Amino acid sequence: MIVTVSREFGSGGREVGKRLADALNLEYFDKELVTEIAKHTELDEGYVSSVLESGGFRNYAFTFGRTMPLLMSTPTPVTDILVAQQRIIKAIGEKGNCLIVGRSADVILKDMNPFRIFVYADKQSKIARCRERAPENEHLTDKQMLRNFKEIDGGRKKLHDLLGTAPWGDRTGYDLMLNTTNVNIKSIIPALAEYVKCRNK
Amino acid sequence: MIVTVSREFGSGGREVGKRLADALNLEYFDKELVTEIAKHTELDEGYVSSVLESGGFRNYAFTFGRTMPLLMSTPTPVTDILVAQQRIIKAIGEKGNCLIVGRSADVILKDMNPFRIFVYADKQSKIARCRERAPENEHLTDKQMLRNFKEIDGGRKKLHDLLGTAPWGDRTGYDLMLNTTNVNIKSIIPALAEYVKCRNK
Repeated sequence: MIVTVSREFGSGGREVGKRLADALNLEYFDKELVTEIAKHTELDEGYVSSVLESGGFRNYAFTFGRTMPLLMSTPTPVTDILVAQQRIIKAIGEKGNCLIVGRSADVILKDMNPFRIFVYADKQSKIARCRERAPENEHLTDKQMLRNFKEIDGGRKKLHDLLGTAPWGDRTGYDLMLNTTNVNIKSIIPALAEYVKCRNK
Repeated sequence: MIVTVSREFGSGGREVGKRLADALNLEYFDKELVTEIAKHTELDEGYVSSVLESGGFRNYAFTFGRTMPLLMSTPTPVTDILVAQQRIIKAIGEKGNCLIVGRSADVILKDMNPFRIFVYADKQSKIARCRERAPENEHLTDKQMLRNFKEIDGGRKKLHDLLGTAPWGDRTGYDLMLNTTNVNIKSIIPALAEYVKCRNK
């Protein structure tokens, strides 16, 4: 069984992924992928993270085409990162019994027929969730947070749509889409795990 | 508890709705709403159905605006139907413990905080589902079926978007979106019912 969890920033998608992996006894992958990719590419982990998590594209002077061949023809550290990401995620998928949060795993592993979840929530709910988890010295206004959401999700969308056919967040690319607005994530996990299990029969 | 099920034509949304209503012990409403509306408006049931189910708009020489006020200023049988639909669905919602399939119940009952499900599937899966259920003397090509899907879903979208803020089929307007491609609907009902129950706690 392979499960992928894509998510809007602040929607609690990581928590859904972590808890669901525990419930289904799947190996869990999230930020550790960044470490792995940094190791493979011999690039700084913070840099890899900025490319993969926050749409680091904006720092680059060239525009990406929508297709891999074009991308491949402009070798840069970004290309190396994306290639390493693909290789590492495919290797994880081949071992099976895993749950991967983000990193476009849903499209990278498409041929392995993963169960693809998308987690989202309304803006107020995402702001509240982020505030709860923010370090004490972080004081962002709602407006700043919304700008961050837009930037981070925009980066995710860009990376995802580079590889995929269905646009990021569009229902056609997912098996199940969960709205976590006002939801206690812990409480939905047993039912969600059951749902994934019967869908995989 | 109020549950609404919106769906793409051919996705098995009605079956999801019927079975889920049984599992949750909710009163089920679907086509009976058409009968009820026909009775209230003293219009032909087939005509009411064509307006509400197949986007009967195309038979009319005027264009609908996106807002109710404009609609209200052009009184026609269509207006009567939509007004009756609203009234009847609101009355059902007020009684509670119901599951309503289609008829824009998700937006009409928004203030009552329904659990809003959207059911969808890929084209091949919808074609297969429709063929299975088609009367023996119906012989539509794939192309004809796809045209039907587009027309019917287009009508649903039009009616829905007239009332709602989130576009029909867009994740922001739903609590849960289910992809029924290659899914045995019966098998997912227990987990789905559990999910709805814990979300309503």
